[in-house]
This record gives sequence, C-alpha cells and structure tokens, in this order.
Amino acid sequence: MGKGDVECNATLFTGVGQPPVYQKLDRPQLKHEEDVIIKVIKTSVCGTDLHILQGNVFTCLPGTRIGHEGIGEIVERGSKVTKHEIGERVLCQCITNCGNCKNCAKEFYGHCVNAGWLIGNRIDGMQGEYARVPYANTSCYKIPMHVYNTPIEDGILLACDVIPTGLEVGLLDGRIKENMSLAIIGMGPVGIATLMCAEMYKPREVYFVDLNPFRLDIAESLKSLPGFANTKLVKIHNTLDDAAKQIMTLTKNAGVDLVVEAIGIPKGWEISQNVVRPGGHIALLGVHGKPGEINLERMWYKNFKMTAGLVHGYTTQMLIDKIVNRSLPAETLITHRMKLSQVEDAYKVFKSGINCLKIILVADDEWDNQKYNKITHWD
Amino acid sequence: MGKGDVECNATLFTGVGQPPVYQKLDRPQLKHEEDVIIKVIKTSVCGTDLHILQGNVFTCLPGTRIGHEGIGEIVERGSKVTKHEIGERVLCQCITNCGNCKNCAKEFYGHCVNAGWLIGNRIDGMQGEYARVPYANTSCYKIPMHVYNTPIEDGILLACDVIPTGLEVGLLDGRIKENMSLAIIGMGPVGIATLMCAEMYKPREVYFVDLNPFRLDIAESLKSLPGFANTKLVKIHNTLDDAAKQIMTLTKNAGVDLVVEAIGIPKGWEISQNVVRPGGHIALLGVHGKPGEINLERMWYKNFKMTAGLVHGYTTQMLIDKIVNRSLPAETLITHRMKLSQVEDAYKVFKSGINCLKIILVADDEWDNQKYNKITHWD
Repeated sequence: MGKGDVECNATLFTGVGQPPVYQKLDRPQLKHEEDVIIKVIKTSVCGTDLHILQGNVFTCLPGTRIGHEGIGEIVERGSKVTKHEIGERVLCQCITNCGNCKNCAKEFYGHCVNAGWLIGNRIDGMQGEYARVPYANTSCYKIPMHVYNTPIEDGILLACDVIPTGLEVGLLDGRIKENMSLAIIGMGPVGIATLMCAEMYKPREVYFVDLNPFRLDIAESLKSLPGFANTKLVKIHNTLDDAAKQIMTLTKNAGVDLVVEAIGIPKGWEISQNVVRPGGHIALLGVHGKPGEINLERMWYKNFKMTAGLVHGYTTQMLIDKIVNRSLPAETLITHRMKLSQVEDAYKVFKSGINCLKIILVADDEWDNQKYNKITHWD
Repeated sequence: MGKGDVECNATLFTGVGQPPVYQKLDRPQLKHEEDVIIKVIKTSVCGTDLHILQGNVFTCLPGTRIGHEGIGEIVERGSKVTKHEIGERVLCQCITNCGNCKNCAKEFYGHCVNAGWLIGNRIDGMQGEYARVPYANTSCYKIPMHVYNTPIEDGILLACDVIPTGLEVGLLDGRIKENMSLAIIGMGPVGIATLMCAEMYKPREVYFVDLNPFRLDIAESLKSLPGFANTKLVKIHNTLDDAAKQIMTLTKNAGVDLVVEAIGIPKGWEISQNVVRPGGHIALLGVHGKPGEINLERMWYKNFKMTAGLVHGYTTQMLIDKIVNRSLPAETLITHRMKLSQVEDAYKVFKSGINCLKIILVADDEWDNQKYNKITHWD
C-alpha cells in the first residue's frame, strides 16, 4: 500500500463485548499543525485494550480504532512539526502532550489540558497500517537507526506504556527508595515490567506473586540483573488466598514497604491491604473496571498511603536509552511476534493468557520483505 | 477521694451497643517504671469513644475503662520517670510512645513497638478519677501553671487527639502547602480542628461542608484568623448530594488539591472522590467501622493519592505552645463543660450531635471547689 492510497487496514472497536475487527477504513489525515501521520512499523496489544472491548474505558467509544503502542515511520507532518523528519522512525507515546500547559509543566502529561491519553481511546489508535499522532514534537521519540528491525527495537515499543506504567505509577508514585521491601501482586506484563524497573532501586527484598508458573519463571529470570545482587527475590506461587499469609510469615509479620497491585481485581487489592506494613504504600496499576472495597475498618490503623493513576511517560526517553544500551531487558516481556494482519488472532492469544505476555505485531510488508527477524517466540 | 483510697470512679465500656457506665472500680496502680498515676483534672468524650461503644474498634474490649484525652496531676510516678514531678499537671497524649523503638525514631508514634494507642483502648483510659499513663517521660506534656483552670487549659486538652488528628492525618499526611485549595468534608470537631490548623498554611481557598448550621457557623467564625487574610473561605451548607456539585462549579470543574474527609461515612468518601482534582490528595480522618467503596473505575484516571491513619502526636508540643500564646483558638471547639460524674449524660449530649462539639469534663472536686470557671456553653 503506497502513500497515495486512501484506504488503510486498522483494528476497530465495534461494540462492547464484541471482538475487535481488522478491516479496511479511511487512511488517517493530518488535522493539526503539530500532527504527524505514521506508517506503523510495529504495534502491540495491551490489557487496557481488553478493558476497552469490555466497555470498562468509558472515554473510548465504539467506532474507535484501538491500539496505543506504536513505532512508525513518519510519512506526513504538519507545518509546526520541527523536531522530526519525514522518513524518521519514532516511538509514539500513548500519552501525547502539548508541552505547553500547566500540567505539562509538571510532567503530568496524563492530564495534559490539550492532549493526554488520546490515541486508541479518544481518537483513532495505532493497531493499523497508518495512524495520526498529535503533538509529535513532544510525544514522539526518535529510534536510533542501528536498532531498526532488531529485538531491541521491539523492546523500545514497550517504553510506550507497559514499562513506564510499572516505573511511574508503581514505583515512583510509590516513592521507592533503595533498600526497601516490595511486593508485586500479579506477574502479567505490567507486573514483570515493575520488577524489571525495581532493579534500578536495589530493593532489599521483593516478593512477586502469581498463579501462573510460566509468568513466574520469566519474572525469576530477572534475578541476574546487577541491581538485584543483594536482593532477596522470592517467588510466591500459590493460591492467592495464601499469598498474603506467606508474605507475612516471610517478613515475620512486618509486612512490606511498598505493594504494587498489578492485577486490577478485588483479590489483588485485598492481598495488598494484608501485606502492606504500617506506614507503607499501596500503588495500584492499570485500569479498573469496577469499584473496589477498601477495608477502612482495618486499614485506618495502618497509616497507609495509596496511589492509583494513569502513566505520564516522563520516563520514556530514559527507558529508551536503557533499552538501547542493554541495561533494561525489555525484550524479556515479549512472548510472541505476529503480522499486523493477524491482529484478531493476537487478541485471542493475548486474552487466553496462556504462556503469553506481550505480542509484537509487525507491519505485513516489513515482515514479508524479510527485513524483520522472524523470531516467533521469545525462547 | 484521697491518695490512700483504693476505689476510683471511672467510665466503663460494658459491652457492644451498651451505654457507658460511670461506676466505682479499683484505683489504677503503677505497673512499669516509666508509668505515672494521674489524678484526672479534665477529660473529654471523643467520636472514637462512640465507635468503641458500637464495637468498631476491635482492639478495645468490653471491661476497658474508656477515655483517651486527659489532663491530670501526677500523684505517683515510677522509678524511671525523670522528666515529670509529683504534683505537676500534665497533658497525657492518647498515643503513648516509648521514645526508643524504630518507629519512635521516625516520630511514627502511633506504631510505637511498645506502646501506641493504649489508653482507653488496650488499657484503661482517662474518663475516671485516676488513670495510669505509660511512658510518661515521652508521652506527657507539662501544662504552664499560669493557664491552670482557664479556657486555655481546656483548649490544651484538645491537643491530645482532635487537633493533631486534623493537622497530622488531614493536612500533613495530605502534604499541604501554602496557596493550596482545600475541601473539608464534615464540620464535626475534627473537621473544624482541620480548618483551624489549615490557617497555618495560608490556603488559597477552603470549601467546608456540613448539613448543620450550628457547626458551619462555628467554622465560619475562624475566618478572622490572620492566615486566612487572603483565603477564599466558602461555607457549603447543603444536602451532601449537592456539595460535590457546588464545589465543582465554584472551582470551574478543576476540583481541589486536598480533600480532608472528616465524617467517616461512605457519603463523605464519595464526595471526596468527586471533588479531588487530578493528581490531588484525599486524606481520610478518624475511625471507620465499615469497609468503603472506592470507585477505582473512575479514580484511576485521576492519578489521585489517598492516606488514612492514626494520629501520632508529633505536633502536640507545638500545638500546646500555639494554644498558650493564643495563636490557635482551640477553645472554639468547646461547646459544653460538665462535671466528670455527669459523663453518662455527656455521652448522650455528644451522641445527639445537637449544638455540640467538644465537651470538657472537669473533676468534681475541681468544679465544686470553684477553682474552675464554670462557663457551661461556648457562647
């Protein structure tokens, strides 16, 4: 499909409870002077997309093209895009930011007055052949040419959302400091990303919990990271009812300094309340579709802190640098690589959760032209 | 009743759902070397006592003498009490602290490994003629002699619990800074105490909410405090369903930086969630008897912070100093003064909530000997 075409395959959210449909649609057009149009090189499926399909994200309406993780080549740019060139390959942050408003001044990009989480939510997203990206000067990050078409580039894709969510919403909002004790509840992509980033802070001990041995094994493979040299890393593979008891026994009933809840279900929240130490912090990650119960009758004794929120992306450039210099093994999160046109199947694999973390979807022409290293499974 | 007597009237928690009973009991004895025995000069009734009577405080068992606010004269002291003399009049912090453990090192006295909230909870309390106070060196504060038997001394009594709760758990845990916008939900004693302390931080605007015009008027009387000179103080007298709408309209839908929830019921929590700005903070005060519902499905968008907890008392000395030098009008919170032997009636008045904030209960002999200025109502 060439630049002159007016059609573009993309992944449509057709209605609550319906599977996504990959179909021919209009090709995106520039709308504002700071927009770019990208030809999508690679994209991914996120747990948040499943929440959209279930109707849990009230800002995303049926008829929206979904996908908020993307690397693309700039094929058109608005008159005010000065920081990126036509032909340049860029990572497009899911949280676009104008760079000029009062919230952007505080790096609070998720609440940018003019943008925020638009792509694949309030405007069309990136699980398609082309996409429009607003505020490209401040929301796109140049990919170094020497990593094009490598697993490192696949890793960089994860600096859109899943890795900064673990770092910003889990660890930094949780005020992580060196030598802390940590529990991470749920070893899905964002849980493992949190563990991966925790390495930067040399925690004293980390308890990581899941029911799925495949996920726990991937998490455990991170123990060789240098920042974990003096860390007690403890895999908690058990029914969730027992997880809190195990952690309390292992900490001699002290509990942990910071709990990162990375499941987003009431059970994860319950474990978090049971294992946080008095004065400790619970950081809730990700999308929640339902109200939760907070056990104030027990928790007020604990002088606890809690935070929850949306990623901002203020760590994205730092994360890209670490991925490029191989000090952050982002590619550990990738279990599958498929063609973009297989996106409907990708959703099925991802939703099943079976031996699956992140799926990289590669543009069909890139894949077919063998520009791309066709590893189909991480191991 | 003299020092040699073995009996002592005190207020007993006889069982969940039962009214408190003021009755003859054994006189408290020294148990540890850092204990003192005080002859209670004045005490008060706290909302937390009502929670105890309702069975919401699982650490306080029937058979406990209640009351955790007290000023008393030291009549006996253990061999290791060096900082206070026999005959000295002291404020006894409801949160006693050993001063030596890892949590005391962080001024996290509520979680003192050896003490914490004992008095009127895990051990006998101060709504009686005599009481035992542990760790007197670090948990008792000398009352200046020139304020004995004055309304200032009554105000100092409130530096035990209600005022530091508003300051520490509401404002300081809520990371208050100058020029912030603030909402205080509920103008009971702790809500008004929060407002009173907010003055120290020169907030830009404060919305204070209640259904009760009596309480709102007392709150409004604080507007003349110097720190409020440039503060927009807005009384929200309305049904609680409308309170959130009013605050959002008045803030042009921006919401407020810090919400202090000072009711402790689901409705207050709901208003708090509706009026906190993105990135803002909700501080929950006081005792909660039931789980609350947290609307994670809406709140995760807001990148909010939440804290809840127990007072520590690390501001108590500072508050006493401000009350003595008249820069904190603690006595504004006092609506009733009664004899200690009228404590059963005091509970009825306090529970009714009618034109009532804090009730000062004065030892009968002090009252009868006319040492005490018998103002029976604040105005």
